[in-house]
Amino acid sequence: MSRADRVAARLADQGIDLLLVTGLVNVRYLTGYTGSNGLAIVGPGTRRFLTDFRYVEQAKAQVREFDRETVPRDLRLGLGEGWPEGPVRLGFEDQHVSVRAARLLGETLPDRVELVPAGGLVEAERSIKEPGELAAIRAAAALTDEVYEWVAEQGVVGRTEREIAIALEHRMRVRGAEPAFASIVAAAENGALPHAVPRDVPVPAGVLITLDIGARVDGYCADCTRTWATGELPDDLAAIHSTVLAAQEAGVAAVAAGRTGEEVDAVARDVIAAAGHGEHFGHGLGHGVGLEIHEDPRLAQSVEARLAPGQVVTVEPGIYVPGRGGARIEDLVVVGEDGPEVLTSTTKAPRVVA
Amino acid sequence: MSRADRVAARLADQGIDLLLVTGLVNVRYLTGYTGSNGLAIVGPGTRRFLTDFRYVEQAKAQVREFDRETVPRDLRLGLGEGWPEGPVRLGFEDQHVSVRAARLLGETLPDRVELVPAGGLVEAERSIKEPGELAAIRAAAALTDEVYEWVAEQGVVGRTEREIAIALEHRMRVRGAEPAFASIVAAAENGALPHAVPRDVPVPAGVLITLDIGARVDGYCADCTRTWATGELPDDLAAIHSTVLAAQEAGVAAVAAGRTGEEVDAVARDVIAAAGHGEHFGHGLGHGVGLEIHEDPRLAQSVEARLAPGQVVTVEPGIYVPGRGGARIEDLVVVGEDGPEVLTSTTKAPRVVA
Repeated sequence: MSRADRVAARLADQGIDLLLVTGLVNVRYLTGYTGSNGLAIVGPGTRRFLTDFRYVEQAKAQVREFDRETVPRDLRLGLGEGWPEGPVRLGFEDQHVSVRAARLLGETLPDRVELVPAGGLVEAERSIKEPGELAAIRAAAALTDEVYEWVAEQGVVGRTEREIAIALEHRMRVRGAEPAFASIVAAAENGALPHAVPRDVPVPAGVLITLDIGARVDGYCADCTRTWATGELPDDLAAIHSTVLAAQEAGVAAVAAGRTGEEVDAVARDVIAAAGHGEHFGHGLGHGVGLEIHEDPRLAQSVEARLAPGQVVTVEPGIYVPGRGGARIEDLVVVGEDGPEVLTSTTKAPRVVA
Repeated sequence: MSRADRVAARLADQGIDLLLVTGLVNVRYLTGYTGSNGLAIVGPGTRRFLTDFRYVEQAKAQVREFDRETVPRDLRLGLGEGWPEGPVRLGFEDQHVSVRAARLLGETLPDRVELVPAGGLVEAERSIKEPGELAAIRAAAALTDEVYEWVAEQGVVGRTEREIAIALEHRMRVRGAEPAFASIVAAAENGALPHAVPRDVPVPAGVLITLDIGARVDGYCADCTRTWATGELPDDLAAIHSTVLAAQEAGVAAVAAGRTGEEVDAVARDVIAAAGHGEHFGHGLGHGVGLEIHEDPRLAQSVEARLAPGQVVTVEPGIYVPGRGGARIEDLVVVGEDGPEVLTSTTKAPRVVA
């Protein structure tokens, strides 16, 4: 079954006849279209794709299995007709569509077409990766590994965090990929911020430096964090690194189909809490990765959903001590029937990069 | 008056008591906060700013004139209390807030707090730039000019479109800025696509090449397009360039406070139509630029809003001949009391860059 077939097969359970797909990542997933203005309508026997004149040629090349329609740039204006006879329950992605857009949409649709909130159907399909998708993610992870080695060869001490970030992103692009997200390069006290922004500040010797980077290949993201020492470390910083590493390895080992997000999170969190750093790990353990850098599923407290084979998640515990420094270690992991497959392979062992 | 004061002063006209600001660019504009999770509530006498624990330090440094509150990561959960006595009409940004988020918000708010669609109030303030904002846009435009000269020195023939795009974006970053958007570098038939994506294809000699690039400085964007010849041109391509240039210069000269968007658009469009290329100019003449690369106002057909002093707009007509090539020329222009001030100064005259 195609991706659209799988989504269409689930509509009846949701009480809808058709699904209006407007989230562009979801449109891409279903149709192959990578432009910036397009939407799809999917249902049993229905495969409509709408875009405007600017993207007609691109759509012809990319969108093979949908009926293509060219409509005004405000795509909504193309939705006045083309609906089946009789009453239609039209699901829409209520987590993406704004209140204003939904109102305008309601004014455009024939009265017999009823809008029904139905967000998340495509996201659920996306969370289970097909072999071709896993191949792209593997390639992105391999390139990310390569860039880590390249950064280590260049050295970090005396360069600014921003210089390092700019150089490594350029390297990704020269090697044919794109950065999947804004790189984090955070040394010393900046490493105590989970979402640190690289500073125009030279990296000193003898501190922890956290790099959180990822390449995007064929649209699919990788995500990998390493924390290095920039010289000999004081004992407290070395202990932070070893605790995070132990927590991360325990977390990776706990990734298995059937486990809930909170169960996997707890395995890593318990290691950090036992070391007395419970209050210094203030975020979830991980998240799904695919066409988006953050997608389903989540590994975090209160997440009761169970992991399924073919999902790809990060495992990224951290310890953040304000004013002092921090460490985070993150791998990209495929949930397998027989345990986890780790895609990011650059070493996690304590490593000095000066 | 501060930005928040100006917005607060307009709420009564909209029939609302307070405005819930959730669009992150709008939050930044009002509060100074540049993180990725925060919201503001503004009204006469009310300046609330909510973020989660990850951004407490950043907010302390950036958000000076608001009462700061630290709430759960799902910021909505911080909105259960803190409201004035009695019934409250709470405006929200209905063009940003999703249907799902609005429903959850309604479930969280006390019954006496009524949600009222009120999008666009902050955007209206943002469209008129303050002197400090104009200074940042001028700096971004100057750096963009500088990068154009750098690209011309490097040459383009024989390099791939993507190589050129990657190199110039890296140059922007090394010079302290960020690319404001994904650069367009499109030669020959690729230049016939208004939204071309740079290809892994070497640029040939004797064709038109369009570059559409812009730097971002202190959050503010520049946007500038030039079309060069990569050698001696056939007559039809040279004529396309000269027609676009004439249309662009006429369009710039027509930018004035009090003119409507469609009036300015028509001035440039008429020049292209008179040259027989009317059907080859399928987009609007321009758009506002600021913290976002596309913002209010628009210069396009059917836009009746009038330009006001302090707005910053692009003027960017183009001719796109499928399979053959295209040209677009774009400047960034401040709407002044006494006529337009052009911020982008790299030459528009026919130029050979080989």
